[in-house]
Order: sequence, then structure tokens, then C-alpha cells
Amino acid sequence: MSGNGMDHIIKSYDDELARLTGEIIRMGELSISQLEAAIDVVERRDERAARHVVSSDEAIDQLEQEISRDVVRLLALRAPMAGDLRNVFAALRIAADIERIGDYGANVAKRSIPLTMVAPIEATSGLSHLAKLAAVAVRDVLLAYRERDADKAYAVWKNDVQLDEAYTGYFRQLLTYMMEDPRNITPCTHLLFMAKNIERIGDHATNIAESIWYQVHGEPLVKQRKKRDETASPDLSGLL
Amino acid sequence: MSGNGMDHIIKSYDDELARLTGEIIRMGELSISQLEAAIDVVERRDERAARHVVSSDEAIDQLEQEISRDVVRLLALRAPMAGDLRNVFAALRIAADIERIGDYGANVAKRSIPLTMVAPIEATSGLSHLAKLAAVAVRDVLLAYRERDADKAYAVWKNDVQLDEAYTGYFRQLLTYMMEDPRNITPCTHLLFMAKNIERIGDHATNIAESIWYQVHGEPLVKQRKKRDETASPDLSGLL
Repeated sequence: MSGNGMDHIIKSYDDELARLTGEIIRMGELSISQLEAAIDVVERRDERAARHVVSSDEAIDQLEQEISRDVVRLLALRAPMAGDLRNVFAALRIAADIERIGDYGANVAKRSIPLTMVAPIEATSGLSHLAKLAAVAVRDVLLAYRERDADKAYAVWKNDVQLDEAYTGYFRQLLTYMMEDPRNITPCTHLLFMAKNIERIGDHATNIAESIWYQVHGEPLVKQRKKRDETASPDLSGLL
Repeated sequence: MSGNGMDHIIKSYDDELARLTGEIIRMGELSISQLEAAIDVVERRDERAARHVVSSDEAIDQLEQEISRDVVRLLALRAPMAGDLRNVFAALRIAADIERIGDYGANVAKRSIPLTMVAPIEATSGLSHLAKLAAVAVRDVLLAYRERDADKAYAVWKNDVQLDEAYTGYFRQLLTYMMEDPRNITPCTHLLFMAKNIERIGDHATNIAESIWYQVHGEPLVKQRKKRDETASPDLSGLL
């Protein structure tokens, strides 16, 4: 038996890291449920369910605070070095990204409340499509985190271009609805912001992918593709 | 003379923390310049200057990465405890918030580019007003950070309600412009997102205020006022 004091410390550090990883996966899964619930709420126009999604965001925020506390304790008690420190920092960054994903999901649900009060428009199906792409990205990047799989993370990172393109297309579609009928303006404005929130969820999934890459390889993912927002680019003015 | 080894280590830690604080102040000042330049660009409709603001965001991102590296080194070399650890974590969180403020400033500048190509509308003055409120908040919270002044930080946190109200008023104003004339829809959509970006800058200033409070008092600022987004609340539907 090699049960000396040093082994004990090393085992405890691994245990704590495993616990941290587990908390982050749980937090991530909550954020996906929230996003899916938000979209369900938009499709069904259910104000009560929407308020439930908004209030559930608290649980994600609390998990992030627990994770921050765990990280502080781990750093103070173990003073990890190099690769271990990288794991701990990745956990901290990823938790912050998931917290933002939760916020965006809650925002989508929140904006669905004013939407319930306006005439139904067919424009929400584009939003569901965006949300499905975003949920896949978050799910895949969590799997990559669980398996410490940098290549899987990179695939998520690269795929974000699809979500960006879907967002741009949907944005243009909403503008045409607004131009067709002024009564569409207010609901479509909410849908614009909801779509933007979902596009941002994709950006946070790519952030998580970058954290995983750094955690595994110890060097940053080369940013061949800059984070873009096509609706902010000049070519949109062609719509006028 | 009390020049022993322990003193030397303590002094070095203080030096490193002072350097970290200085980097964060510098980063924050850059983010304020970016926000002010973005608004200037919107008012003058200057595409070249807008592109300059967008590309200058890189400098803020690099400073954040330097700060993260400094924090990692400080943690690895000094393994600070309790209050010191709190200082280091506050630095890390504040740097992340400033990085986001920089992103939002760059986004405002980016969206001003498609705006330059459309007929001038009077609606940009409301945006300048919002941006001025946001710049004051960031400036004040940086001062609070420099002086480790929790009360000053709390004042910034409380004042954010003004920015939120100005945002809500401006949002409604833009909706009426859009309803008056469909040609206003596309430019006003950009202005809506720009306003939202500025409102988010205010939220990050309040995050920084919370970090300062925690750094000074060792306990979280009680959230009497939840982060709100009035345009996502049901009462907006009264506009229909």
C-alpha cells in the first residue's frame, strides 16, 4: 500500500477537481433545460411557464457562486501548479460562460411574456430553429468538457458559423415583417432581441470550446474566425 | 531595519497587486475612451473612425489576457490567502467586466457603420445621452476601485436605475419612429441594439461595484434591486 500523506493530498485534489467538473456539467445541463423550456414557452405562449423559467435562473447563478467558492478553497488549500491550475481556471471561465447562457435563456423566456399579448405571428419558428442549433452547441461542448476532448470542442467552435448565418437570415426576415405591417414592429423587436440572445449563447459555447482547448493543449485556440455579428456589418444596409 | 525575507515577499506581493490594479485602471480608461469614441462616431457618421474603434478593442482584449496571466502567476508564486485572495479574484472579475464593456463599445461603433448609409434621423441624440450616463458610471466605478471605496461603488450600483429608465424611454421613442415610417425600421433596429449595448455597459459597471463591495467587506452586496430590463417586461405591450 502506498498510502502516504502525499498520495492523500493528490487524491483529494483529484476528488475536488472531479466535484468541480461535476458541478459544471450539472450547471450546463440546467442551462440547456432552461433554453429548451424558454423555446417551448415561446411556442406555447405560456406566461406562467415563462415566469417559471425566469425564476429558475437563480439556481444556475447559485451554482456558479458555489463553483467560485470551491475554486477559491481549492486554490487556497492546494495551491495547484501549471496543468492543475489550468484545470481550475478553465472551470472558473466555463462556469462564467454557462452563467451567461442561463441569463440569455431566461431573457428569451422573459421577452416571450409581452409576446403572448400580441397577435400570433408565424415568425417564431425561425427562433425555434436558432434555439435548437444553440442547444446542440451547448450540449456538444459540455460533452467535450466532460471528456476533455479538444477536437470535439474545436468542432463546436467551428460550427458556430452556422448559427451566425441562421441568425442573420432570421434578422432579415424579421425586418421584412416589420416593414410589411407596423403592427409587427413591437413583437418583432422582441423577437430580434430573443434571436440575438440565442446567437450570444452560441458565442459562449465557442468561449467554452476555447477554454477546453487551452485546458488540454496549454495554448490558445488560434482564432481563424473572429466572432462576428453579421447584422452589424455594412451589407445589411442593402435591405433599405 | 526590518529587511528580512518575509518582508521582501510581502512587499513583492503588494507590488504585484499594485501592478494588477494599475493594469485594470488602464484597461478601464481604455474602455471609456472607446465608448466615447463610439458615440462621437455615431454623431459624426464617420465610417473610418468607426472601424478604428472596432480594431482598437484588440488592445483591451490583450490587456485582459495579460491580467489573467498575471493573476495565474501571482496565485502560483504567492498562494495568497483570505483577503489577498479576494483582491486577486476581484481583479480577475473586474477585468472580465471591463473586457465586456470594451466589446459593447466596439459593437456600438460597428453598428454605426450601416447607420452612416441611411438618411439622417434625429434619433441619435437619445443614444448619446445614454452613453454619457454609462461613461459616468464606468468612470465612477473605476475611481471606487482605485480608492477601494465600497460606498462610492454602492452609489454607482444604485444609480444604474437611471440608465435603465433612460434606456426604456429611448426604446419606446425608437418604436414610435419605426411605426411612423417603415424607412426608419432598419436604422432604428441598429439604434435599438446600440442602446441595449450601452444599457449592458451599465450592468457591467454594477457588476464591478459588486466586486469592489465584496473585496472591501468580504460579503456580497445585498441585491435589493434586481438587474432589470424594462423593455422585456409585459408593460411594454401597452404601446401596441
